[in-house]
Parts: sequence; structure tokens; C-alpha cells
Amino acid sequence: MHLKKPRLMTPGPTPIHPAALQAMLGAEIHHRTQDFRNLYLSVLADLKTVLGTANDVLVLTASGTGAMEASITNCFSPGDKVIVCTAGKFGERWVELAHAYGLEVNVLQAPYGQAVAPHQLEIALSQNPDAKGVFVQASESSTGAVHDVHAMGELVKLTDALFIVDAITGVGTMPLEIDPWGLDIVIGGSQKALMIPPGLAFVSISPKAWARMQTARLPRYYFDLLREKKNAAKGESSWTPATSLILGLAEVLKYVKTLSMQRLIENAQHLAAATRVAAKALNLELFAPDCPSAAVTSIRAPAGLDSGVIVKEFRQRFGSVIANGQGEMQGQIFRIAHLGYFDFPDLFALIAELELILEGQGALVPLGAGVRAVQEYYAGIALPEKNPAPAHV
Amino acid sequence: MHLKKPRLMTPGPTPIHPAALQAMLGAEIHHRTQDFRNLYLSVLADLKTVLGTANDVLVLTASGTGAMEASITNCFSPGDKVIVCTAGKFGERWVELAHAYGLEVNVLQAPYGQAVAPHQLEIALSQNPDAKGVFVQASESSTGAVHDVHAMGELVKLTDALFIVDAITGVGTMPLEIDPWGLDIVIGGSQKALMIPPGLAFVSISPKAWARMQTARLPRYYFDLLREKKNAAKGESSWTPATSLILGLAEVLKYVKTLSMQRLIENAQHLAAATRVAAKALNLELFAPDCPSAAVTSIRAPAGLDSGVIVKEFRQRFGSVIANGQGEMQGQIFRIAHLGYFDFPDLFALIAELELILEGQGALVPLGAGVRAVQEYYAGIALPEKNPAPAHV
Repeated sequence: MHLKKPRLMTPGPTPIHPAALQAMLGAEIHHRTQDFRNLYLSVLADLKTVLGTANDVLVLTASGTGAMEASITNCFSPGDKVIVCTAGKFGERWVELAHAYGLEVNVLQAPYGQAVAPHQLEIALSQNPDAKGVFVQASESSTGAVHDVHAMGELVKLTDALFIVDAITGVGTMPLEIDPWGLDIVIGGSQKALMIPPGLAFVSISPKAWARMQTARLPRYYFDLLREKKNAAKGESSWTPATSLILGLAEVLKYVKTLSMQRLIENAQHLAAATRVAAKALNLELFAPDCPSAAVTSIRAPAGLDSGVIVKEFRQRFGSVIANGQGEMQGQIFRIAHLGYFDFPDLFALIAELELILEGQGALVPLGAGVRAVQEYYAGIALPEKNPAPAHV
Repeated sequence: MHLKKPRLMTPGPTPIHPAALQAMLGAEIHHRTQDFRNLYLSVLADLKTVLGTANDVLVLTASGTGAMEASITNCFSPGDKVIVCTAGKFGERWVELAHAYGLEVNVLQAPYGQAVAPHQLEIALSQNPDAKGVFVQASESSTGAVHDVHAMGELVKLTDALFIVDAITGVGTMPLEIDPWGLDIVIGGSQKALMIPPGLAFVSISPKAWARMQTARLPRYYFDLLREKKNAAKGESSWTPATSLILGLAEVLKYVKTLSMQRLIENAQHLAAATRVAAKALNLELFAPDCPSAAVTSIRAPAGLDSGVIVKEFRQRFGSVIANGQGEMQGQIFRIAHLGYFDFPDLFALIAELELILEGQGALVPLGAGVRAVQEYYAGIALPEKNPAPAHV
């Protein structure tokens, strides 16, 4: 008999930062008080700092999908033509949302595990000069692939279309230069690299997007961004906010400001790169080798093995919760998360668990080889502290 | 840049059980209410169940040392002759305590890393038929050694002496059959295998010990066990108790009752055994190979390397807190804990960290070899779940 400590290793929700968890206990605060207004104003200001944008940033009490819906209902009118770049389940969500609100949708589709190339978007934009919006995932976490939002932004910038970026798993895992790249709307979620539980989404909004909202006619009420902006200026949210999460977010933003966003991104990128070398050492096939996300690494289950069995064994044998594939990839891939509050010891343990699971399922796995690959990667980036000579032997 | 999550890997305090941590937040309870009395009575009853004894078990708001002191002041009179079996820093604490209270102390001393043999005690008891007490550590956590308290108990049982066992790191890491083995006083602490923070000690007291207390004349007040017993029967503690810790302890006792004490012990013993095979794979020397504790494994630093450097590197490179040697072993050994809320993924990560640290300090360490040894140990004890055949390929 051995203990199995629960460990959350999914690409969202992610492990909660301890300081945030503690702060969330102070949620016995009323949201229409000056104390809360001061807190909320500082959270909104810190979000701008951490996201590195001069654009407005608003917070919504909703999951990321709510903010995706807000970007559609606030910026478009019935029948508007839009282009959706889709490379997975979350790209398909853009398509569903746009259809739900009666937009005319042009879909640029990449196979799962790949990304829509900027030149595909360039052609689509030239064929559809009347497109009012372009939608994309910065990081498509259902497959572990990234889009080149920089190159795409440069193209959309030249048109009247708004560039609307689901960066729910992109924030904190990849550079996102919102203002210079022309990312008109950028959407994030609380339960990803920002290390708090689900329930908050945030949205950055460019002047170009605000201008569009003056004429956008789709119906909206809870997600009315103009109303939210007016209230945010006073330190208020339009509706009752998730106060415990705001308290947690305030702590995480302090942490990320001290650490710097660049270092948070580097951490995820190092963990992702180390996971890829471990996969190679274990003869496992990466699912998105050409455009890998640092938010999550998708790995194909060995031939003959359902990835759901791997996910189940992680839970049953070790208490660790990792992600299966989503949509049509369920059963075929498993996904290892790197975004937010993860570190190398997490990865050492996770790869050791994976090796044991694969061996237990009959795969030929050299025990320890994946861990060693991660250790060697770590040794390459992290030099030991210079210590004084041993005091005694 | 990479994140370093703080991880407490010491033989006390140990990682806190999540359910206990949550329960501790309910500490806004008054200790002179029926709600608290009910809680306290159930904690005392559960402690008896978990310790597997018909003896009374009392809880003191104090660290383990306070309970050690209580066992002296409640059971002895000035000038009483006692035998202390000492094999490390905590054995020396018995000697200091006995001297502080004017007892006549016979010391049976084993070198650090070894244990006092039962036959040594047998001789000492025959030479000192007037000895009133025998003191020992079940597990000497300063060195990672255990005493054979069973054999010792059988010897002391035949005399008028009380057998007083510091089981602060013994509880939950080794079998302790309190009643049949004649362990008159057994002392435990909250911050060890019982997975809550420091601040509570518990003491089991045999009828033989209670009888002695009727005549023991050493001065005592805060630690008056007879007074505590009377109050405990009513669900009260004599003085203000650490209510948050009692709330946490109640949760942990539920957890351990469900798990069973035997399985908690097995977990520590497996982790300790796996640590020993990892040390062997890394050509590291165990410090207490002949009588290894399952609470903590002491390993000698490689020649020329101060173990304090290893401890410092764990903290600086990974955020992990492990223990240095104590007393005269400081700088020479480092200690890896297994007692309480630890599992195999903790150990996979810790051994991977250790390998990198030793390599970074110039030791010849085959990266991954120690982790592999732990994996192989794990694979030998934990069979994978039988899963249905893969649903698809």
C-alpha cells in the first residue's frame, strides 16, 4: 500500500498559487465598498502591466467562453462576415459561437496537430475584403499547437477587420505583444497561467475594437463591454463579481509582476521543451511537432493503447490528473500541462509516473530514460549556485 | 528561468494533509462549548483507535519535548534512578531532561547511526534493579535509526521500571503494539506522521504509569497529567488548547482510520526502502544501514562535500527543503523524510533533484539511475490496475 496524493496536472484548471489560495479566504468583502473598489482598480491596472498593453483590460465573472461570446456580441452585427482560423476544438468553438449569432463564417481549417498558416489567412483576407473579423486561438490547447498570431496580426492590421485572439492558454506561455501586433481583442482565463481557479475571464480591447462597438448591433446584456468599461473606471464591475477570485488574482498578479511575465513564459517554454525531449527518449510521438505550444504538450498513445487508459492509470496509480485528448482526439493523445504554477520537480515525477504506466501496459519503455532526458535538459539551463568550498569533509 | 515551488520534505514538520488544512480554518470555535467538547472527545477516542491501545491517550498543547518533560515530571521523584538508551540527539534530550529534574541517570549510549541493543538494556536492568524508568527513542530521527522497542519492552515489563518511549517519529512509521509490548508511556507529535503543523503532543499512559503518578513528587503544573485526565473525561483540556490544530487532527484521524494505521506505516516503509535502493544505485552510503528507520533515511554526503551544501542546493535550485544532519552529524549527512503525507511521485522528484545536485557539485552520478531504482522498487510493489482492452488504437 502506498499513498496517492492528488495532483492537478491539466492545462486548466492548473495548480493554485498558495498565496492566492490564502488570499481567497478573505472573500468576506462587499463588492460595493471602497476597499473593494481600490482592490479592483489595482487588479485592472496590474492586468494591463502583466499583459503589457496600453489597451483597456476588463474582467468578467465568466469562464473564457463567456469572454469569447462577449467579443462577438459586442463587436459584430447580424450577417457580418468573419474568418475563423481553426485547428482544434477551441477553433470549432469560435465557429459555433459565430453561427449562434448569425454571422457569415469563412472557416480556415488546419488538421488537428497543425496550425493555420499566415499565408492562408492572407489569401482569405484578399478574397474577403469585407471581412469584419478574424478569430484565432493563440494556443490551441486541445491539440497543443500554436498559431503565429504576430504574422497574422500584421495582416489583419491592414484591413478593417478586428483581430480577435483566444489567448486563454496563450497568456503566460508565449510572447503576445498586444499593441504592436494589432491584437484587437485578447481573451484570457483565470484557471490557466494565472494560477487561480476557474470563474474569471479577462479581455483586452483596442481602440479599433471600441470604435466598432459603437455600431455593433448584436444583442448583449451581461457581457456589455462598454457598460463594463464605464464601471471599471470607477472600480466597479457591472454585476456582482467573483470576489474570492479577484482577491486571488490580486495576489497572483503581484507574484507575476515580481517574477516578470517573460520569466513565467520562459518557465512554461522550458518545461514544454523538456517534455518533448523526454517524449523522444521514450520513443513517443509528439502530436504537434511543427508548432508546439508551451501551454500543453500532446503526445500520441503508443499503438494499441487508448490514451484514456494512460489518463486513468495516472489517477489510479498515483493520484495525478492529466488530460486526455479532446473531441476527435480523445483516446489517441494525452496532454501534459506546463502553464502556470508548474516546475521541474513536477515534471521529474510526472515523467517517472508515465514511464511506469507505459511499462505496466506492456510498452517497451526504458525506465528512467525520460526522467534523465528532463534532468539533462534542466542541467543545460540551470547552473548550480556557486558555493563556498566545503567547510569540512 | 524556471519556477521553484516550495516543498517541505523534512522529517517534521511534514506536508500538511489538505483536509486538515481546510479544517483548521474553522478555528473560530470556543474551547469551553459543547461543540468543542464533542470534537475533543472524538479526537481522544480516535487517537486511541489509531494508536491501537486501551491505555488513556491525552493531548497536550506543546511540542513533543513538552510531552517528554511531562513523562518525567509526572512519573518520577527527585533522585530516582533511570536508564536512558541514547543513539542520537533526541536520546541526549532525554539525558538533559532527566538531569534537569535531578534524576540519577544511567546512560546506555550507541554511536550515531546505530541503536542500543536489547541485551545492553538487559544487562543494565540486572545491574540496576532499583531503576524506576527506561527511556528510549522508537525512531531516532537525528540519525535515521530505530530501536527494538518490542524486545526492550519485554525486558522492562518484568521490572518495576516504567518504559517511556519517544515515538514522535515512530508513530505511523513502525509497528508499536503499545499494550502487549508494555510501552507505559508513548509520546507522539502533531507535525510528524499525523500530517498537521507543530503544536500538539499526545501521550498514551498505561495503568502502571498512572499508579506511579500517585507517588511521584517532581513539581508540575501545566503538564499535570492526572489533572489533564480528569478534564479529558469531560471533553475539556486543562488549559486553552490549540483549537485549530485539534480541528486539523480530527480530520487526519478520520483519514488514517479509513486508510488504517498499518497502511500508513507500509507507505513510509516502502518509501524508505525505495530511498535505500536509490542510494545504493547512486553509490551513496547509508548512515544507519543496520537499523534503518522508515521515518527518515540518513545518507552520508559524498567525500569532500558538506551535506549543508546539498541541503542549500535543494532549496536554491528547486525550492525543496530537506534536512541536514543534527548535532555532531551536521555537515556530514542529509536526511530524506518518509513519515506522513509523502508518496512515490514526491520521491521520484526528490531523487531526480538529488542526482542533479550531486552532479552539479562534481560527484560522478549516473543521472536517472536513482530514479530508475525507485521506479523498479515501485513496480515491484504496485501492480497496474487491470484495465479493459483498449477501445481503439
